[in-house]
Amino acid sequence: MSGNNEVPGRTVVTKASMILDAFAGNRVSLSLSDLARATGLPSSTVHRIARELVTWGGLERTPEGNYAVGIRLWEIAARSRRNYGLRETAMPFLHGLFDLTRQHVQLAVMDGADALLIEKISAAHAVGTIGRVGGRLPLYASAVGKALLASSPAETQERILARRLPAYTPSTLTSARALRRELAETRRRGFALANEEMSVGAVSCAAAIPGPGREAVAAISVVMPAGEVPPRTWSPAVRAAAFGIARALCQQRPQPVISAQLTGVQ
Amino acid sequence: MSGNNEVPGRTVVTKASMILDAFAGNRVSLSLSDLARATGLPSSTVHRIARELVTWGGLERTPEGNYAVGIRLWEIAARSRRNYGLRETAMPFLHGLFDLTRQHVQLAVMDGADALLIEKISAAHAVGTIGRVGGRLPLYASAVGKALLASSPAETQERILARRLPAYTPSTLTSARALRRELAETRRRGFALANEEMSVGAVSCAAAIPGPGREAVAAISVVMPAGEVPPRTWSPAVRAAAFGIARALCQQRPQPVISAQLTGVQ
Repeated sequence: MSGNNEVPGRTVVTKASMILDAFAGNRVSLSLSDLARATGLPSSTVHRIARELVTWGGLERTPEGNYAVGIRLWEIAARSRRNYGLRETAMPFLHGLFDLTRQHVQLAVMDGADALLIEKISAAHAVGTIGRVGGRLPLYASAVGKALLASSPAETQERILARRLPAYTPSTLTSARALRRELAETRRRGFALANEEMSVGAVSCAAAIPGPGREAVAAISVVMPAGEVPPRTWSPAVRAAAFGIARALCQQRPQPVISAQLTGVQ
Repeated sequence: MSGNNEVPGRTVVTKASMILDAFAGNRVSLSLSDLARATGLPSSTVHRIARELVTWGGLERTPEGNYAVGIRLWEIAARSRRNYGLRETAMPFLHGLFDLTRQHVQLAVMDGADALLIEKISAAHAVGTIGRVGGRLPLYASAVGKALLASSPAETQERILARRLPAYTPSTLTSARALRRELAETRRRGFALANEEMSVGAVSCAAAIPGPGREAVAAISVVMPAGEVPPRTWSPAVRAAAFGIARALCQQRPQPVISAQLTGVQ
């Protein structure tokens, strides 16, 4: 194979992961040249590695001859540690919240500077929102993100607030000072709000799901159209669901093994 | 690295996929020696490749020092072609069915000899079932599987029926002849049933989601406790939801480009 214009020092695993990373955007299928452009790898290299990924099932060929993420990758990824357990445990509570509100209900975990959406329940005709399952929302501009950020260590908060904070709408809070105040208020009242900060026309109320330590394991939110009821109206229901999930997760954790001590006592 | 007892001809991509495949079972985390045992690869090879997968985010280290599937793999896999679109489109219909039945509602696609569960909605105290999201059910022993199999080409059906058909319960149909009759009946009436064939105490009613060709794109089912109502009671609701999803998917498909002809007419 050609390989003469390959960047030295990149392993095959790195190249394979660069190819898979190219699918993290919103396009379900990519051509060979799309993949070469996205990764900066020679077409021959992309072709060779993509073919191996297709043999495995991590990628699939589409009827048009493009590449798409394969169902085998999805099957393995469904075992992801931060997802497995959390999603199943949270589902009945998310449904309860959805039954009550009939608005979008979202479950997200913190990943880097984003809230990664693990689950989303939507009515057929709910307000248009940005987030979809597997998608990301910025921590500083979404209610679910602010709930996660407010319960993270102070140094994590400062690291996020030190970044560029672009405005998504005229209402996005883009100064570190305003956001610091907002996070303190979120901690004080126990829930986060977003008022058209991410999408014009959508408001949201979120609460963190407390974990065994100080940090949240995840957060949940309800997203509804602006101008109907104030989003804080839903805060007792959102908080109750978040605490319900925390309690259910806690009950599932393996208990400390005490049989050895018990045997010693007998 | 050692490599002296490595099987020749296996590429690094194959070895990486063997490591990821080891997570397809029900264990969320695996140790280095678990991975070496599951893949048959030398520990040094597993260690080297797993470290690269951790750097990427496809794997994560657990607090105990084991390996687990990483959230990055899940994020990319959420774009899987057979999942993306289908799941989002189906969700409001699955919720409608769940509101009506308050029983497990499942969405599955056919993959090899299995029904792969794409989505599952469960009430907090529903009947115990085998299936979970990312899990597999045999085509011949589950209602959702029989709905998929009944709408697949005759040669696919015969290939599945020619395999070993182990009994999961005393009610599992294990003869090709009985299953052929069952599939014909499924096609005639437009829905599939399972009577404790997969789990004792659970019965199910399923319908295929017709695609643009003859084959189903997916199937949905309702799983409920045996001995309450006959599972066929829910067949009109299950079929209505399946057709609703098919219609919604159809409306989303890109329409044939006709602007060129229109330009020619003008």
